[in-house]
Amino acid sequence: MNIYYDIIAQMAQTMRNLQAILAKAEEHAARLKFEPENYLTLRLFPNMLPFSAQIRILTDASKFAAAYLSGQTPPVTEDNEKTWADYKARLASAISYIESFKPEQFANAAEVKVSLKSFKGKYMTGHDFLICRQSPNFHFHVVTAYNLLRQGGVEVGKGDYLGALPLKD
Amino acid sequence: MNIYYDIIAQMAQTMRNLQAILAKAEEHAARLKFEPENYLTLRLFPNMLPFSAQIRILTDASKFAAAYLSGQTPPVTEDNEKTWADYKARLASAISYIESFKPEQFANAAEVKVSLKSFKGKYMTGHDFLICRQSPNFHFHVVTAYNLLRQGGVEVGKGDYLGALPLKD
Repeated sequence: MNIYYDIIAQMAQTMRNLQAILAKAEEHAARLKFEPENYLTLRLFPNMLPFSAQIRILTDASKFAAAYLSGQTPPVTEDNEKTWADYKARLASAISYIESFKPEQFANAAEVKVSLKSFKGKYMTGHDFLICRQSPNFHFHVVTAYNLLRQGGVEVGKGDYLGALPLKD
Repeated sequence: MNIYYDIIAQMAQTMRNLQAILAKAEEHAARLKFEPENYLTLRLFPNMLPFSAQIRILTDASKFAAAYLSGQTPPVTEDNEKTWADYKARLASAISYIESFKPEQFANAAEVKVSLKSFKGKYMTGHDFLICRQSPNFHFHVVTAYNLLRQGGVEVGKGDYLGALPLKD
């Protein structure tokens, strides 16, 4: 068992839950006869990043977590998505990427040094990066995406966000 | 180092960041000359739980995580908060509770069995409970509280939510 691997694998599970939420959003759009593209520009306030950016950043957050904690360079993406289908494909691609990792790749995850541009020459240990920065950042954008759809009238609840739980008898 | 302890300690840090966000909400209310009590009933959609419930559930989520993973019974709360000050006190109390724990109390956190009423006789390991259920649940309600204030015009951004990061030279 490698807990760093498990935390990152849970990001894939959360993104799968988000896929199911997006499917409910599509049904909602079909019922009300509008294009799901209309979701992409949703904001809670005019100076917020829109729904599309929530998908972009949450997928990046998961990929950066997996890459940096396993000592790899994250894949470069062109960030040229335009349509609802494009953003769904971006989400599916991030899930596939996360699920390509194996627990043993995270053997040195706690100690690896992570230095993003925004850290201005400083670094965080992989441990701190995941717990203090990347996991909260990932959740921030997933829940904001959820809340934007929730405000838009899509019939979802916390159960959709949490998904199936690994209960044991 | 105990990573279960660290994940739960980060919940206290996130709640401290939320305290700073609530302070900005108070300033916003003062500037616009309304009572912060008005925030307590905010919702993004009529069938959502209000802002006050976000505070109630996120504080419970953190306390349950710390209690169950250390093999303790969480403290009983009366859930009788009414005012903005009451909810701030509830948040401060949860932070104090989380910060009263020590890493060694989580030595058996991975294997401890957690069985909530809603699990209907089944259980999760402490490991699964924290990663698959309690951490996502905690973030769900913190980010929703944030988003409700964001929609309400409080001038906050992701930096307020993430707070200071443990960068190293």
